[in-house]
Amino acid sequence: MASRAALFVARVQPSILARQTRPLLVKSLASRALSYRLAPLCVDSTRPQSVSKFIRPSIAQLYCCRFVSTSTPPEQIAPAVAKAEKLEITTSGISSAVPSNSFKRRIYRLFYYVSLIVGFGVTTVCTLVAAFFMYDATTYKELDDAEDVEVALLALDPVIGGPKNLPILESYLDDEECEAKKISSSKPRLVILGSGWGAVALLKNVNPNDYHITVISPRNHFLFTPMLPSATVGTLEFRSLVEPIRRIVATINGHYIEASAEKIEFNDRLIEVKQGLPDGSIRAFYVPYDKLVVAVGSQSNTHGVDGLEHCNFLKTIEDARLIREKVFRNLELACLPGTSEEERKRLLSFVVCGGGPTGVEFAAELYDFFNEDLCNTYPKLLRNLVSVHIVQSQGHILNTYDEKISEYAHERFKNDSIDVLTNARVKCVEADRVIFSQKNAEGVAENKELPYGLCLWSTGVTLCDITKDIAASFPQSQHNRRAIETDTHLRVLGAPLGEVYAIGDCSTVRTNITEHIFEFLKTYAMKANTTVEKFEITFQQWRDIATNIKRRFPQANEHLRRVDTLFTEFDEDHSGTLGFSELTALLKNIDSKMTSLPATAQRANQQGQYLGRKFTKLARAQETLAMDEIVNKDVDDLVYKPFVYHHLGSLAYVGNAAVFDFNGYSLVGGLVAVYLWRSVYFAQSVSFRTRALLFMDWLTRGLFGRDITPL
Amino acid sequence: MASRAALFVARVQPSILARQTRPLLVKSLASRALSYRLAPLCVDSTRPQSVSKFIRPSIAQLYCCRFVSTSTPPEQIAPAVAKAEKLEITTSGISSAVPSNSFKRRIYRLFYYVSLIVGFGVTTVCTLVAAFFMYDATTYKELDDAEDVEVALLALDPVIGGPKNLPILESYLDDEECEAKKISSSKPRLVILGSGWGAVALLKNVNPNDYHITVISPRNHFLFTPMLPSATVGTLEFRSLVEPIRRIVATINGHYIEASAEKIEFNDRLIEVKQGLPDGSIRAFYVPYDKLVVAVGSQSNTHGVDGLEHCNFLKTIEDARLIREKVFRNLELACLPGTSEEERKRLLSFVVCGGGPTGVEFAAELYDFFNEDLCNTYPKLLRNLVSVHIVQSQGHILNTYDEKISEYAHERFKNDSIDVLTNARVKCVEADRVIFSQKNAEGVAENKELPYGLCLWSTGVTLCDITKDIAASFPQSQHNRRAIETDTHLRVLGAPLGEVYAIGDCSTVRTNITEHIFEFLKTYAMKANTTVEKFEITFQQWRDIATNIKRRFPQANEHLRRVDTLFTEFDEDHSGTLGFSELTALLKNIDSKMTSLPATAQRANQQGQYLGRKFTKLARAQETLAMDEIVNKDVDDLVYKPFVYHHLGSLAYVGNAAVFDFNGYSLVGGLVAVYLWRSVYFAQSVSFRTRALLFMDWLTRGLFGRDITPL
Repeated sequence: MASRAALFVARVQPSILARQTRPLLVKSLASRALSYRLAPLCVDSTRPQSVSKFIRPSIAQLYCCRFVSTSTPPEQIAPAVAKAEKLEITTSGISSAVPSNSFKRRIYRLFYYVSLIVGFGVTTVCTLVAAFFMYDATTYKELDDAEDVEVALLALDPVIGGPKNLPILESYLDDEECEAKKISSSKPRLVILGSGWGAVALLKNVNPNDYHITVISPRNHFLFTPMLPSATVGTLEFRSLVEPIRRIVATINGHYIEASAEKIEFNDRLIEVKQGLPDGSIRAFYVPYDKLVVAVGSQSNTHGVDGLEHCNFLKTIEDARLIREKVFRNLELACLPGTSEEERKRLLSFVVCGGGPTGVEFAAELYDFFNEDLCNTYPKLLRNLVSVHIVQSQGHILNTYDEKISEYAHERFKNDSIDVLTNARVKCVEADRVIFSQKNAEGVAENKELPYGLCLWSTGVTLCDITKDIAASFPQSQHNRRAIETDTHLRVLGAPLGEVYAIGDCSTVRTNITEHIFEFLKTYAMKANTTVEKFEITFQQWRDIATNIKRRFPQANEHLRRVDTLFTEFDEDHSGTLGFSELTALLKNIDSKMTSLPATAQRANQQGQYLGRKFTKLARAQETLAMDEIVNKDVDDLVYKPFVYHHLGSLAYVGNAAVFDFNGYSLVGGLVAVYLWRSVYFAQSVSFRTRALLFMDWLTRGLFGRDITPL
Repeated sequence: MASRAALFVARVQPSILARQTRPLLVKSLASRALSYRLAPLCVDSTRPQSVSKFIRPSIAQLYCCRFVSTSTPPEQIAPAVAKAEKLEITTSGISSAVPSNSFKRRIYRLFYYVSLIVGFGVTTVCTLVAAFFMYDATTYKELDDAEDVEVALLALDPVIGGPKNLPILESYLDDEECEAKKISSSKPRLVILGSGWGAVALLKNVNPNDYHITVISPRNHFLFTPMLPSATVGTLEFRSLVEPIRRIVATINGHYIEASAEKIEFNDRLIEVKQGLPDGSIRAFYVPYDKLVVAVGSQSNTHGVDGLEHCNFLKTIEDARLIREKVFRNLELACLPGTSEEERKRLLSFVVCGGGPTGVEFAAELYDFFNEDLCNTYPKLLRNLVSVHIVQSQGHILNTYDEKISEYAHERFKNDSIDVLTNARVKCVEADRVIFSQKNAEGVAENKELPYGLCLWSTGVTLCDITKDIAASFPQSQHNRRAIETDTHLRVLGAPLGEVYAIGDCSTVRTNITEHIFEFLKTYAMKANTTVEKFEITFQQWRDIATNIKRRFPQANEHLRRVDTLFTEFDEDHSGTLGFSELTALLKNIDSKMTSLPATAQRANQQGQYLGRKFTKLARAQETLAMDEIVNKDVDDLVYKPFVYHHLGSLAYVGNAAVFDFNGYSLVGGLVAVYLWRSVYFAQSVSFRTRALLFMDWLTRGLFGRDITPL
């Protein structure tokens, strides 16, 4: 009971006692006790007899002790006092406690608080670990006798049919295995080709109960492409950028087929799918659809340059792995005896063709790796021989970004001795050198060459085969050679209305307003009993038309802000009305100002989200529409707004620094920007799992450096 | 100053006040304050005027308040009292505080402590994360202008020489880049072939300042082989089992060459090393050595069975990756339409040939994966079609373990419906089925077959090419066809003394005591002036010889415990002495009892440690030996004890359970044993880095399940 906090003994020198009145002393002692944060005490009286053995009798004593209860006998107080703290009251005041004790106590207190904090910390961490293990123990499953699973006969033995007499996948193995899947199997079939940004955004936004969803893709994972350059040198692990598509699909009772779509039979609403078997043969079958979304992405653009078989690309995990292997193989070869100085330099020369974000970030990551990790494990000489080059056909790297950003990146790379070659056009790639022509200061092209150990080709994207095939199916409607054209509802032009959609890199939204001029004018002309060509539009009518255009082509919004100015500007004959030719000129002018959407993850993501939400809404509206007997109409337009792209900004990593371009507001900076850059991607990461893995990777890099084993 | 802990107000009913004397009430209130853990207070006096507005005037009041200082004016006390806690003293005693307040207070207190604990926890975690980021920020390096590095001319332009006129790697690129490396480059050259358990144990135990160390291995990483089966189904990541050999070598100022040793020129002390170049050509060169350690390991044993090209193996990361890919490819193929029921069953039939730890653990991991993770993402039907088979030629699986363990594993697998086929000998492996003969209950062999989707071949190990070549170099001394024979000092028999060592799977320690009988008897016979064959050994002499044997062949220790019994037993003519033939019989008997060392990580590790320590000691002793003019003697024997293998036990994972065999003490059990099994390997892991990664993997598996994307 005699805890330190409950009790203390004051030794008061007789001279002080004489000078002060007892009540005052008692009060002071109480206040003193407070300042020591001692617990409540009750000032009582002098009781020399019970504690005499602890105190020298030459000093008059005053005891302040807490009575635990009113009946505590004096013999219990004595040992309590023995353990109590002792204060000495001298002529200089009560403040001086027994010095040695005081110092000890301070040390003790420091120690006490430090150990309290450390103890709490350790306890927290241990508790977390213990909690994890307790949870973990529940994740191991003993075998419950494998339960019977209902399987539809059609899934085991599919019907043969379609133009090529192939099995038709009407029913899936797991369609009847649980209630939720049984319900969804009666819903319209939504088939998504691809497993990239667009597909995953769609999957995450569509209501799983409204459709029977199937994803067809040869790539069984979603890849977080913006961080792929970091994976090439071991800053991040491949796994942290990847989410198995089956995991995503499982959350919405969907299905996944690891195969590639080869051809689409739009009339029969069948997708011809092919899967290579291990013995080299190919199994083909049909997957039926009610709604089809093409989100197959793109492939690297060769720009017709020869020798790209010597180059590396950077679009898939496999590409990143090949780069990683090559980087480390080159390092090892450079260490071998018999490798000449020239050869060594060539092996350690890294050439990046293309100054876009991918190329720039790869160069930056590579450079950081050489700078931060190479010397720890490889001979220092190699560090001096390494060179990184960026060959850019434009005048700047990152030329789609704000100029300020582009300049910052140049400056940064100059400091980092990354060699940026602008206005340089690659002519061909040989086995060990890149041949390119570069304009000199006078604008005259000079042929140059760069020996390389690794050459990355990242100069933009082009169509995949299936995309070409789809576009070619509708020669009447599809005119763009670079992508599948869709309307602003993302429906593939030419395909049956509301059945086929295209999103992401493989598609582009056609925004040719001029094409629709007859539609806009028809009703007005009819009312005025004249032909469209002869109709004169008043300002009021032009405003209505402009509103109509804005609704149907949201991308045109910013070019239609000043309808009055436009009207005056294009009213060439100052008649106060616009003739047909004048209106055509006006609309063409707007068309020319509208740029096509960028081939970025951001766009694909937004399009996927848009479709996901629209599909959910469409399913909801189906019943109402049926009641209202609205069929064979433009249901999409009735139910949901057209797609509009909101550019949220671009960002890039430029070697222990990062650049941001938020709709014209640019931000450039060092390490803080890098952490911000990471945060943005961390937040956008596809699942909690990948976020946890990303964090672990950063932890690993921080603690142990980058990984130097290409596995 | 009016903190809750410092002050309270008691409202005493007039009736109570009348019944009790004021001093007693004051004392009781003080005690009451204590029980509420309130801070020190000084009982003063009633002061109704200062607090009257807070208390109903119908109740007589008694105020207990702490005076912050003796000079606190009453007007400061009033607000303090307002915030103070209020106690109500009723006829039932002081214990009842104002009820509503009391309940609120209890809630408040609970909330307070919970938030205190949570707050501390969150603070700790946040502090750790913040601390990490602060540390992390220091790990990014801005370019310091690449410094000049000294390089020896010999490293850039090596001398040509040796039997085949190849470049000789006398000096390395990084030999002169720092003081430590400069010093070590003048030391004896220690070259280690291989990067497995033996090599790494040696590297970790040798003193880096005593040798110029080079590791030559085509595999650039150390692989933690015992956990490899866990990596096949994503329980662990490949990376967590791997430590880059360059990282280990860097810590001891050593060198690493990623190439394979093809041939050893023992006379010139040169190793012929070959490295395949990307263009398909091969670069060959010599690496000189003063001491050579062969630790190249082994390869899978085919046992002459045909068709193993269809099988998977499990010795490297690449093997594990191939298995992982095949498992998931088979699952995907099984989902496709047009796959027949029979084909589906075949694809999901996993056959493991070999019932050793690797095979058993692989089967267990595979089974766990199917049981715990498959149904989350694949159709449940597949789970019912999966089958796992172990084909074991012996009567038990895990037959090198204690019988109890073997039985437990059988029982476990029976529960888990893993099909264990004992006494079954594989005859050949076809593209889709394993043909084997199994003895039935009558002991008659029956031919059977098992269709498979994946067949793992793990039936023991055999020699690599370089090992065969080394053994063949000393036809006089090397007689074992299964490994390089060494003496008990791990020196390769036949090679120049003290120059070539062999450890790990590729080697065996020859313990043929009988062979040395002449040596043992020579001195005795000479003393007795007779020939060895005719010499009769007394018991005393036999004891001396036994001691000598024990010293030179420590593995014979346990068979030489009862020297007297042995003497009596083999003294067939009861002459009291042993003749030459009797001694030969005795030694042969001991030889027959000694088993060869197991081909395990444990043995390789111990041999590596042994050599590391011995080499350090040898380097230290060199000077002394030179002074004593001891040259061309058995220096190893003079300086260090012979190698002795201590079996520490075996362990294996058998599917959410683990078995341990500690020198006869066996331990089997469920989840707790699994955690123990993990702890053992966690502790034995090669670096802090791999430990951290292992822990993260377990965390990931616990939180998100196994990884289902083979990358």
